Amino acid sequence: MMTQDVEAIMRDMGQAARTAAHTLAKLGADSKCRALHASAKSIRAAAPAILAANERDMLGAKNKGLSASFLDRLMLDNTRIFAMADGVDAVAKLDDPVGQTDMEWTPPNGLNISRVRTPLGVIGMIYESRPNVTADAGAICLKAGNAVILRGGADGFHSSMAIAHAFRTGLQSEGLPKDAVQLVPDTDRAAVGMMLGGLDGAIDLIIPRGGKSLIARVQADARVPVLSHLEGLCHVYVHKNADADMARAIVVNAKMRRTGICGSAETLLIDQACAAKLLPLIAQDLHASGCVLRGDGRARTLFADMEAATEDDWRTEYLDAILSVRVVDGLDEAMAHIGRYGSNHTDSIVTDNEDAATRFLRDVDSAIVLHNASTQYADGGEFGFGAEIGIATGKLHARGPVGAAQLTSYHYVVRGRGHIRP
Amino acid sequence: MMTQDVEAIMRDMGQAARTAAHTLAKLGADSKCRALHASAKSIRAAAPAILAANERDMLGAKNKGLSASFLDRLMLDNTRIFAMADGVDAVAKLDDPVGQTDMEWTPPNGLNISRVRTPLGVIGMIYESRPNVTADAGAICLKAGNAVILRGGADGFHSSMAIAHAFRTGLQSEGLPKDAVQLVPDTDRAAVGMMLGGLDGAIDLIIPRGGKSLIARVQADARVPVLSHLEGLCHVYVHKNADADMARAIVVNAKMRRTGICGSAETLLIDQACAAKLLPLIAQDLHASGCVLRGDGRARTLFADMEAATEDDWRTEYLDAILSVRVVDGLDEAMAHIGRYGSNHTDSIVTDNEDAATRFLRDVDSAIVLHNASTQYADGGEFGFGAEIGIATGKLHARGPVGAAQLTSYHYVVRGRGHIRP
Repeated sequence: MMTQDVEAIMRDMGQAARTAAHTLAKLGADSKCRALHASAKSIRAAAPAILAANERDMLGAKNKGLSASFLDRLMLDNTRIFAMADGVDAVAKLDDPVGQTDMEWTPPNGLNISRVRTPLGVIGMIYESRPNVTADAGAICLKAGNAVILRGGADGFHSSMAIAHAFRTGLQSEGLPKDAVQLVPDTDRAAVGMMLGGLDGAIDLIIPRGGKSLIARVQADARVPVLSHLEGLCHVYVHKNADADMARAIVVNAKMRRTGICGSAETLLIDQACAAKLLPLIAQDLHASGCVLRGDGRARTLFADMEAATEDDWRTEYLDAILSVRVVDGLDEAMAHIGRYGSNHTDSIVTDNEDAATRFLRDVDSAIVLHNASTQYADGGEFGFGAEIGIATGKLHARGPVGAAQLTSYHYVVRGRGHIRP
Repeated sequence: MMTQDVEAIMRDMGQAARTAAHTLAKLGADSKCRALHASAKSIRAAAPAILAANERDMLGAKNKGLSASFLDRLMLDNTRIFAMADGVDAVAKLDDPVGQTDMEWTPPNGLNISRVRTPLGVIGMIYESRPNVTADAGAICLKAGNAVILRGGADGFHSSMAIAHAFRTGLQSEGLPKDAVQLVPDTDRAAVGMMLGGLDGAIDLIIPRGGKSLIARVQADARVPVLSHLEGLCHVYVHKNADADMARAIVVNAKMRRTGICGSAETLLIDQACAAKLLPLIAQDLHASGCVLRGDGRARTLFADMEAATEDDWRTEYLDAILSVRVVDGLDEAMAHIGRYGSNHTDSIVTDNEDAATRFLRDVDSAIVLHNASTQYADGGEFGFGAEIGIATGKLHARGPVGAAQLTSYHYVVRGRGHIRP
């Protein structure tokens, strides 16, 4: 497609999204709920077409020699398609955040003030080649009364198109504007640039989910607010007063339960006071579960079968069965390491010492800080949000798991009885 | 000052602010409270120096032929300086938002999750030549545990420097880092550009307050999140079922109580069903209080002493004793006008009809929507927030009055008992 065509298409999409958003903002909870159930049904009915589209994407990705973990994220089968549809049904059943009153009060002037949730408007979502995000993001944005323009990774293009088509068919069958959910019908990177420019004011918020090159581009080019989902460079810190069995279980779970999610641990920090006793046990557990270890000098003296970690390792989100390991002198060194190398995502301390836990939970500047729990709990579902679009790592607007409630704004509704200000 | 120098100075300020922010984040409520009281005291003690600096600014502004309302905003006297110090004392006494728990719950997995308020970090505040903002913004940012880099308008430079110096002296006397509050020691516009670039990652949030040219520049150049305080193009809509006396009182108050604040009304919309009876009365009230009217065709047939409004008038924030007036056919036309020309700031409906009020309050997409109350209530103090940095007109992070609580972020504190995720 020529860039000129892309520009016209993108502008039209922006206008269509804006119009759809106006309609969505006035819809009651029931209409949105029914439409989402219809979209789930439509996705199930379209499973053969989605599978065929996914085969085409998989073939292309294999020919490009993409990694096994990439192919796994791209691959769809009937189970995954039905799980995706179930996810849309689950979002349909969540409480509708729009119109909810967060707080209500009467200041001394006697006005009745309430803070009421409103949709954000139009969201531009830029994501990697994970076709399921098309349905997840579409559902969550719509639940919050927002229109969404989706731009998925090029390698999942056909899968995402088939899913978006099914989703839109479902919306339309319930009388909703199908342009509430649109997928950019093009894999040209110029489309991303136009989205970052805001499409003449049509986009209220950009949500990027992807690798460092996307994030760098977003930071350089975005002209609209951005809700960043950066990498999850998560740490588990085993304090000297950690329970040994608990530490072993948490570290293995944090790293190995699923290695490809943003909440998986990438670095183990362990106090030198307990490392001699505990690190060999933890390392054996990890080895047994198929994890490669890369340690600093002190760690390698305690466990021989460990590669040498380089400076780069502390900064690397492996998303794979690899863990970097560092022996630290105590809480302050652990927090300094996390402050320097972490990504403000999710970090955990394992300790029976309440004072150490309190300091860690207060002073580590991450969206999620845990005590005696696995970093893999960094998940909207586990938080009770029902579904999430990702984990926000910035400090503005919403931080941590972003579900439908986090994709709303609010306004103040003020009721007087002829109030004039003295 | 040469641009090269400005760059070095600004980078140093960014680093100093970042360091101060780390210290502030760990301070208890008492330390911040004591330091703010000390700053208030220091401002009072510095009144002669602040007055002398302000005289210099006033002379410059008069020589440039700046408007009377501009000079009024710039002018300081002892009363205003003491009121500014009282404002800092008032912020000191507010509840400290940092460390407050917004919510706490236990999802089915048994984790204890709480959402706890944290500082944002470093705020870059760019504002017009209103010296009092230097103290207000410094106090509110500090209360929320943030460091702030202030860049005030060039015409108030000497006043702001004197105020900032006094403020910092107060902080230092209580052992706080004085670089928690810094004023850009330069009126070169290059400094603004550097702030919009984020000073190598040192700035977490830009808050611009100023005219359209500043806003345009911010939208084009900002590389960090922005909390916009755009213009207040506020409307009062007099519905056909409005109480006549209430409508008269609210319109005059909304326009004339203070014309220079963002919550003052700029446009009156009045239903044609009641305009013949009511508009002449309202217009006479406004005339009597010194207000110039600019009306559309229908309005001018009902009240002769009215200039003709042009398309530009509907888009103009006068901040002066001028009001544009339009006769509309009903609620839908009023809301369409506000949607087209409004600035999503503050809009009010006057009516005894609950259905009309409900629709207006739900469908007008502004930070503050009022029923039977003056738009001049758009104010953090009136909302019970104690003090504000302005009224945010965007939809992200915080909307409406921005006080200390709105200048915080949050993180999730998760407590487990050895939780590993199944």
